[in-house]
Amino acid sequence: MSTTTPANHAFDRAIALQPLSNNLFSGKTSDDYQNMVGPFGGLTAAILLNAVLQHPERIGEPISLTINFAGPVQPSAFEIEATPIRTNRSTQHWLLLQRQGGEVVTSGTAFFATRRETWSEQQQPMPEAVSADSLPLVIRKERRWFENYDFRYVSGIFNPAIPSEQESGDTDTLLWTRDIPARQLDFASLTAMGDVFAPRIFHRRQRFTPAGTVSLTHYFHADAAQLIQSGDRHILGHARAARMHNNYSDQIAHLWSDDGVLLLTSTQVAYYKE
Amino acid sequence: MSTTTPANHAFDRAIALQPLSNNLFSGKTSDDYQNMVGPFGGLTAAILLNAVLQHPERIGEPISLTINFAGPVQPSAFEIEATPIRTNRSTQHWLLLQRQGGEVVTSGTAFFATRRETWSEQQQPMPEAVSADSLPLVIRKERRWFENYDFRYVSGIFNPAIPSEQESGDTDTLLWTRDIPARQLDFASLTAMGDVFAPRIFHRRQRFTPAGTVSLTHYFHADAAQLIQSGDRHILGHARAARMHNNYSDQIAHLWSDDGVLLLTSTQVAYYKE
Repeated sequence: MSTTTPANHAFDRAIALQPLSNNLFSGKTSDDYQNMVGPFGGLTAAILLNAVLQHPERIGEPISLTINFAGPVQPSAFEIEATPIRTNRSTQHWLLLQRQGGEVVTSGTAFFATRRETWSEQQQPMPEAVSADSLPLVIRKERRWFENYDFRYVSGIFNPAIPSEQESGDTDTLLWTRDIPARQLDFASLTAMGDVFAPRIFHRRQRFTPAGTVSLTHYFHADAAQLIQSGDRHILGHARAARMHNNYSDQIAHLWSDDGVLLLTSTQVAYYKE
Repeated sequence: MSTTTPANHAFDRAIALQPLSNNLFSGKTSDDYQNMVGPFGGLTAAILLNAVLQHPERIGEPISLTINFAGPVQPSAFEIEATPIRTNRSTQHWLLLQRQGGEVVTSGTAFFATRRETWSEQQQPMPEAVSADSLPLVIRKERRWFENYDFRYVSGIFNPAIPSEQESGDTDTLLWTRDIPARQLDFASLTAMGDVFAPRIFHRRQRFTPAGTVSLTHYFHADAAQLIQSGDRHILGHARAARMHNNYSDQIAHLWSDDGVLLLTSTQVAYYKE
């Protein structure tokens, strides 16, 4: 499969920002990544991270990112304010706000740092999974943003197209994914891929209910060199829930490169209606 | 064991805030909860949450909380700014800043909501554990804040007092804890207890290294009624790491009431030096 260069990939166009003034950037929503209401949340997270990545005062690489989806993002222009609220010698804390018409639609915080080599160990192994190439590409059309991701389900598919009263019985999904067209993995695309899992309540009950991510937190284990090593190949993601209680469900996810390096630990809390 | 009423418990004194003006509160650090450098991070998280809990415009109960430890909190007065940046019908997003001398020392975001009754299910069961009463109370004096918590280790104790070259081989800790003196569980005390685990790197290697939490995220599964049902009894906490890589380690923790209700999912990323 050919790799698309950043300049002409839909993902790069969708996260593009123009500097307006100190700490302020402008962008606009992309039709290519629309979800049911507003853009795919993973793309919004990637846009907010991208503001820091582009900021002239940024130091280091992302270690953690929290994004709060405060209100629907309308299909139009937006502003991103990315403020370095505390800069230490090798670390930096950021405050992130996305606004439309002066109102906050998304908020967040990010922590960046320069890493040094230390004792290191990966505790969470990659789950056993057959190769991506041996699995069918799942083509789904319910949401526009699905068309930009190559999904290969190892287990735990949510498929409302198959009429069924059967609940799945668990909340686990294991899947391979990458961009369509294939694109070199980087911090922005990994940020978006951390949010590709269907709400766990959909999968658990195998049916839709109004639902959406409220807050998402990523911990980046990989540095830039490890992302480059991942190339444009599929990465493996596993997601599950710990508890669903009165409108809110959590999700814990891990994403590995195809050679077993844990790239990202991601958690989120999602609203569900009934 | 007698229960101390809120007014005279060290925890309540330590998280106490005085309203200064719109969105602004003042407080001061408590000697009772000092860690090696600055206050115990769980207490700082509880203080920031407490600003929202006390805020006259607050609606609902906490669903998620992210706290970023941006710089050392000096033993002195501080200000907390708690701003409702977006209020919807039954949900509210907050921006939280703790300042000393005009500089941000802690930042955060919180999401509060009014829950309605829905289909609910707990996926993550409480691990098997012998009762708290059958385990010895571990008295540790290395940090002042330890004296305010009753720790009963089921497994995975970090104990630098026992000279040993042996590494533990894993990153799992399972322990019972509650306040000393015993105190009715509430959102603030649960917030602090979500951060009582030693840095996983200490436990993994059974030795100290300079380390500290950088960012912490709590998802509150319990509502106020479930916290009341937990009483002042021990809660069970499990923590582990997924990856430690070049200065940064994650931690995933779950806390259950003694009758098996999952109260909190908590993740954090911690710095370690070498």
